[in-house]
Amino acid sequence: VGLDAELERLAADLDAAAVLRGGGLDRYGTPARGAPGHPDAVVRPADLEQVRTVVAWARGAGAVLVPQGANSGLVGASTPPPRRPDREARPMVVLSTERLRAGPVVDPVARTAVVGAGVRLSELNEEAAAHRLELPIDLGADPSLGGMVATNTGGSRMIAHGDLRAHLLGVRAVAADDRVSVVDELTTLRKHNVGPSLTQLLVGAGGAFAVVTDVAVSLERVPRERATAWMVPVDGPAAIAAVVDLEARGAPLSAYEVVGAHALEAARGVGPPGADPFGGAPAPELSVLVELSGDDVAERLTAELERLAADGRIRDAVVQPPTRAWSLRHRITEGLRARGAVLGLDVSVPRGSLDAFRVAARRVVARVAPEAEVADFGHWGDGGMHLNVVWVGGDEVPAHRRAELVDAVLALVVGDFGGSFSAEHGVGPHNAAWWDRTVGDGTRLALQGLAAALDPLGVLGHPGLPYRGGPAPPAATHPGTAAGGSGSPNNDP
Amino acid sequence: VGLDAELERLAADLDAAAVLRGGGLDRYGTPARGAPGHPDAVVRPADLEQVRTVVAWARGAGAVLVPQGANSGLVGASTPPPRRPDREARPMVVLSTERLRAGPVVDPVARTAVVGAGVRLSELNEEAAAHRLELPIDLGADPSLGGMVATNTGGSRMIAHGDLRAHLLGVRAVAADDRVSVVDELTTLRKHNVGPSLTQLLVGAGGAFAVVTDVAVSLERVPRERATAWMVPVDGPAAIAAVVDLEARGAPLSAYEVVGAHALEAARGVGPPGADPFGGAPAPELSVLVELSGDDVAERLTAELERLAADGRIRDAVVQPPTRAWSLRHRITEGLRARGAVLGLDVSVPRGSLDAFRVAARRVVARVAPEAEVADFGHWGDGGMHLNVVWVGGDEVPAHRRAELVDAVLALVVGDFGGSFSAEHGVGPHNAAWWDRTVGDGTRLALQGLAAALDPLGVLGHPGLPYRGGPAPPAATHPGTAAGGSGSPNNDP
Repeated sequence: VGLDAELERLAADLDAAAVLRGGGLDRYGTPARGAPGHPDAVVRPADLEQVRTVVAWARGAGAVLVPQGANSGLVGASTPPPRRPDREARPMVVLSTERLRAGPVVDPVARTAVVGAGVRLSELNEEAAAHRLELPIDLGADPSLGGMVATNTGGSRMIAHGDLRAHLLGVRAVAADDRVSVVDELTTLRKHNVGPSLTQLLVGAGGAFAVVTDVAVSLERVPRERATAWMVPVDGPAAIAAVVDLEARGAPLSAYEVVGAHALEAARGVGPPGADPFGGAPAPELSVLVELSGDDVAERLTAELERLAADGRIRDAVVQPPTRAWSLRHRITEGLRARGAVLGLDVSVPRGSLDAFRVAARRVVARVAPEAEVADFGHWGDGGMHLNVVWVGGDEVPAHRRAELVDAVLALVVGDFGGSFSAEHGVGPHNAAWWDRTVGDGTRLALQGLAAALDPLGVLGHPGLPYRGGPAPPAATHPGTAAGGSGSPNNDP
Repeated sequence: VGLDAELERLAADLDAAAVLRGGGLDRYGTPARGAPGHPDAVVRPADLEQVRTVVAWARGAGAVLVPQGANSGLVGASTPPPRRPDREARPMVVLSTERLRAGPVVDPVARTAVVGAGVRLSELNEEAAAHRLELPIDLGADPSLGGMVATNTGGSRMIAHGDLRAHLLGVRAVAADDRVSVVDELTTLRKHNVGPSLTQLLVGAGGAFAVVTDVAVSLERVPRERATAWMVPVDGPAAIAAVVDLEARGAPLSAYEVVGAHALEAARGVGPPGADPFGGAPAPELSVLVELSGDDVAERLTAELERLAADGRIRDAVVQPPTRAWSLRHRITEGLRARGAVLGLDVSVPRGSLDAFRVAARRVVARVAPEAEVADFGHWGDGGMHLNVVWVGGDEVPAHRRAELVDAVLALVVGDFGGSFSAEHGVGPHNAAWWDRTVGDGTRLALQGLAAALDPLGVLGHPGLPYRGGPAPPAATHPGTAAGGSGSPNNDP
């Protein structure tokens, strides 16, 4: 039986809008970063039972289902791989969660919300705002809640609020075992200490093991006020000391974003000059967007800046309204794209090592790719850094540089600094090779056992996910890891 | 080969202090609550390799290892079961983590600590206090860090700080597969988003799957000040409305403990009269210990209490120094023991339903055990309630009442209120039957797969844990669930 006939059979079991085939699938095949993929079809189940029907169908049809939320992930996990001559013959089908639209059901007394996996963060927060509540995860994209579980979204305010995991109370999900079992841990209870949590295991799994259909999260109060400033630390160590000082004094810190000179210049290049806190002076080697959130934080911010200046941590500071302060920060990605070809690495190291790592990484880049510049920025408060290598005026990252550069920088991160090859973007075909290199035996063994139970045929998840289910070991069947070789991280900041 | 010979062989591979046999094992066999167990031996490995040696030995010797930290758990999971005629013949050996004493290594810049599993919470916090940091989990016992992972310790300040899971950055653990694999996810990185986390799966697992040897946690700043008061809400709904109000106004709430009249009377009965906030007047139907933590919280507390009174939420409030305010709260358990035989149920419901649940639960108790009284207290801010049924003057919970009462109350909790049969104590032989009744297929399937990979012979964990590894299904081999029938929760508050 051909795929067409199989899909007709599936459509008959679902509804007319549930199966998409042929033209018009570009939206589902084009990832936020990286090369376009090639879905053979898109299925869009509208409720839990339809998800079960789709999974059962895929088991029978020998198809791979790539779960996709808002398709805003940055590691390539939500679109099927591009067509390749050596690709396995299984049909690659996007399982879009966009019709899983239950809720949001907000409980203002419990401060919780329950939503379908396809509901967007902005939609949830619009509903929550009526109660002065929010899911306080702040990022450039507008992901779906299911996607946020799959990638464990962090964002700029993680220093205050933690990541998605920190807010997750429970999920409902559909496994791909022979009974198409439901993992039903959907609850809004905050105290529910009943043994190992599968909900927690699905966090960051990138769509492997089970398809998340519903999500319950804890909400927080919207702060009354935010106050922001750009400040210039006297040097790198002072940038770290300043955040330690702020925390030690109990300042209600909600963001601490450190931006290197080249990244700041890039952001300046695409914005109106009036927004520049430094009035067109040469970009400082490091500048910091600091934000406090709570009651009476404007006064508090001024006092903290004076104290940091008096203590010799900073040599300049400009208070700006939040919208203006953040606009410069948010233009960095666009600015870097305008500046040239960008190889972006999403890494972290222990906070105290950030400056030493920054210096060492620049040395590595200068050795491997002397023609490129480093434009770094990141959530230093949590140890995160987006290390971007930019070929100014270039259209593409030079192919002969990519592998060596990625290897050299990530070896420095992981080997010398005890850091992470994926600070916040998660694991997907773009960086699966580094998962393979760094993850230990015990973790692999456990995930194999889990995959054997929940997805023995390897139905769920991008084929490049190194820990997904299926009969063959990852190295033999996964184009992502096999092709990636030294890893092929997203080529954007 | 007999157990004695096997243990001699093990001792030769470890050291003289590592294997204990014969007399003097009471300390390891007596749980904090429930009937004494009967360890055939105690092994105390001193490092990761010794743990691996012990696990390999147990695989060969056919022994069951029951991991034990400070033995302060309340669900019976850290001591072997009492001897029973029908018990399986496998030797029951306590694996004590008390010699896993690495660290604490505190990093004040990163605000992290790495410790051996046998280090106590108090020891970690003593070390952290030198940097004005703490692991802000507050409870009556002094558990080991490994035990805290195994039970996901919550405590009285969970409303502000979350549970152990919220602070856990990584663990190292030893599995019981044929290679005795190490799960090595020990890291202090805060941004390390590299796929599914085994660390998170071991949280709350009660010693199944793998033996935790090392733990990395995030620390928080010690608040400058705490301010506490006892207040009297006008009624149950007002007790809930008051905590919602406090949160909505951004009060830095760090505890919200609601105590029923009989529990307050019990605490009064064992304390010095001077400490009583209500000066000997009849105990209010509900009273609340409220605590704020941060800067200038004394003034803030006074202002909040005035506001709550003006809004008609409370009819009385007494500000007391924290030590005095908490001393009454901390005497409840002792007070209940002094008052009679106690059947304790550790439950939660959505916060908005706490009062309705309390009323309904009292009705159920009055029907099933009209001779008993209900003495409840709990972390209402998080929806938690310790529902204690007290037979005043009794020595033992009447055997003919226990099963019916537990069933009736937990059916109310789970079925009618969507609540939890174990809000914070975790899962062990005391409540395993309710895990069996309430946990769904998908979760079971996944845990079976995990157990098959990590502990195929069923070496690790109390035999009464319903999700542990081993060839036979739980119902056939686990004395805890088989004997429990309707569950036999801890008989203390």
